[in-house]
Amino acid sequence: MIFTIKQDVLLDALNIIQRGLPLKTPLPILNGIKVEVYEDYLILTSSNSDIAIQTIVSDDSLEIKATGKMVVPGKYLIDITRKIDGFVEMTLVERKVLMIKSDRIEYKLHIMDIEDYPDIDFLENGHHLKFNVQTLRSIIRETNYATSQYEKRPILTGVNFKLTENQLYCVSTDSYRLSQKILPLENVEPFNIVIPNKSLDELYRILDSTLDDVEVFISPNKTLFKMNNILFQTRLLDGVYPDTLRIIPTEFPLSIKFNKEELLRSVERVSLLSPRDREHNYNIIKLQVRKDYSIEISSTNTEIGDAQEIIIPTGDVTGPSLKIAFSSRYLTEALKSFTSPEVVLNFAGEIKPFVIKGDLDVDMLHLILPVRIE
Amino acid sequence: MIFTIKQDVLLDALNIIQRGLPLKTPLPILNGIKVEVYEDYLILTSSNSDIAIQTIVSDDSLEIKATGKMVVPGKYLIDITRKIDGFVEMTLVERKVLMIKSDRIEYKLHIMDIEDYPDIDFLENGHHLKFNVQTLRSIIRETNYATSQYEKRPILTGVNFKLTENQLYCVSTDSYRLSQKILPLENVEPFNIVIPNKSLDELYRILDSTLDDVEVFISPNKTLFKMNNILFQTRLLDGVYPDTLRIIPTEFPLSIKFNKEELLRSVERVSLLSPRDREHNYNIIKLQVRKDYSIEISSTNTEIGDAQEIIIPTGDVTGPSLKIAFSSRYLTEALKSFTSPEVVLNFAGEIKPFVIKGDLDVDMLHLILPVRIE
Repeated sequence: MIFTIKQDVLLDALNIIQRGLPLKTPLPILNGIKVEVYEDYLILTSSNSDIAIQTIVSDDSLEIKATGKMVVPGKYLIDITRKIDGFVEMTLVERKVLMIKSDRIEYKLHIMDIEDYPDIDFLENGHHLKFNVQTLRSIIRETNYATSQYEKRPILTGVNFKLTENQLYCVSTDSYRLSQKILPLENVEPFNIVIPNKSLDELYRILDSTLDDVEVFISPNKTLFKMNNILFQTRLLDGVYPDTLRIIPTEFPLSIKFNKEELLRSVERVSLLSPRDREHNYNIIKLQVRKDYSIEISSTNTEIGDAQEIIIPTGDVTGPSLKIAFSSRYLTEALKSFTSPEVVLNFAGEIKPFVIKGDLDVDMLHLILPVRIE
Repeated sequence: MIFTIKQDVLLDALNIIQRGLPLKTPLPILNGIKVEVYEDYLILTSSNSDIAIQTIVSDDSLEIKATGKMVVPGKYLIDITRKIDGFVEMTLVERKVLMIKSDRIEYKLHIMDIEDYPDIDFLENGHHLKFNVQTLRSIIRETNYATSQYEKRPILTGVNFKLTENQLYCVSTDSYRLSQKILPLENVEPFNIVIPNKSLDELYRILDSTLDDVEVFISPNKTLFKMNNILFQTRLLDGVYPDTLRIIPTEFPLSIKFNKEELLRSVERVSLLSPRDREHNYNIIKLQVRKDYSIEISSTNTEIGDAQEIIIPTGDVTGPSLKIAFSSRYLTEALKSFTSPEVVLNFAGEIKPFVIKGDLDVDMLHLILPVRIE
């Protein structure tokens, strides 16, 4: 096994493959990157308990003198590739040693037992659909933040993708807030899967480095995302995702339109003093419609002090007055996922969930559960 | 107590004062910033067990309607000032509440008991000297990194400043490596003090925001650094600093000149595989003069693998051949403290300390103790 390649080409591939290395694993072999050298290209593979990634490297700078395969300690291969310049030559000098040469440096790296590396099938079957890469990135950005970070209800640690009646519902909730995006999707059989939030985090970062359309293959236990030269496969979460549609209010007697940035900065300012511990109304702020239809946002912290800010809505406010309390963090995170410069907060009542929509973000809604105030 | 001031002017002052707030303290009052409002200016003070900082704020935007003084929770005052824009008005509304107003936001912050705040004398007496701010920054940058991070020998956790025969010796060592800078300094009585490395870290950052000369007043237990509108006082370390001059070799049969960046990058590359744990020759690399007078740098890790790089010195190499082993981290940190593009490594023997000097960094030397190799 002998090949040479430009350092930056190899590094680009390793930066993608790195996302599939485990943080820690009971299976040491998974700390390695599988490198397969064929006549005209390389295949690099990494995997952990959640995801597996494979990328094909074919570049004008790639010169293959002898084919072969090996598993190389991932961390060291990446560290070395980062620190060298120009061309790099890799040679399997003995069965267990990889020689890496570049300019005047030479490494002899002990490699791992290729027999130990698990067989990974990248399954190109099941339901087949295709996304524009920007659409897929939007879906992840707009839903993944609202998944649960706690394992108490494992099914909530993922995003639910459910296709029904030619509509794709992408839904996440941690049971205190919810995000839902709906897209039209025709000529695909119905499916209903939940993808772990960590897998979507890694996929999001990898999508950053591609402009291609993304093909998706959905099997019962796995989903494969296929880009031009990258395969990304994730396990799915077991279990039934709750029916969230019924908790979204449909009638909103009060709607208020805000400049998104203004509302965001105001919420950040007011929540500076709000209690940080879960025991004492974690990050809770209050929103109140005043008589002059300006909006007051406030927080109270008996130990530290109070904050209060007035915001002028950007549209007319009609409907009943209202005073509602909720976590500022939920509102902040929801607002940040919008691209619209203007957002509308739709209220169904003081103890009912409220819904945020954006002018430009069609078919997307965010919902936040209020907390009761004295 | 009522005043208004531009947010950015106040924030600049608070960014300096913040460095004097304790990370944690048994004295809760020290989490506060003392704010004194006089006819034409403010004085802000912070302090912890190591340092005390005071800054005078006088600005065209400052409008004082009523004088007074208070101690405000530091974290919240800083967080609030960061998040607001334009002008800010501060009013002591009751004995225990500070009202902070800016645009449409209003905070009511509970303040602290000013009687609890300790009296701090900023002592403008003792030995008096003056530094150009860049000189003082250089001294700190070139010496502070080599102080000990461990409390085993507390005196080594500071930098020794010793004036003798019109020469100021600035010395640091953790007993494995040493940095020494010498400056001429006339008309000052001899002194010999040790300033804690943490204090110098904070001072270094504060010096970044000033262009003025720095006056220094050295008392038996404290040292005061006085800039235009900032006072920075630090405690000194007790004890006798070891006599380091006698461990610096004076005869060097072998000297090798390198391009600093080339050497630095090479050392970083070679040390990628060197063992990271203290039990197994922590970060040890070897340097060897080869027959052709090129220099080989190498590392060995029985578990991971080996690395080896050849460097061509930038000057003639004369003297005996040599093979020496040492911590790559010590060499890396020493090289980074040089401004010279070329450095010379001076060797006294395989088991004697070696000394690094830079063409442009006059009167500065770094010394590294080798480790024995099999």
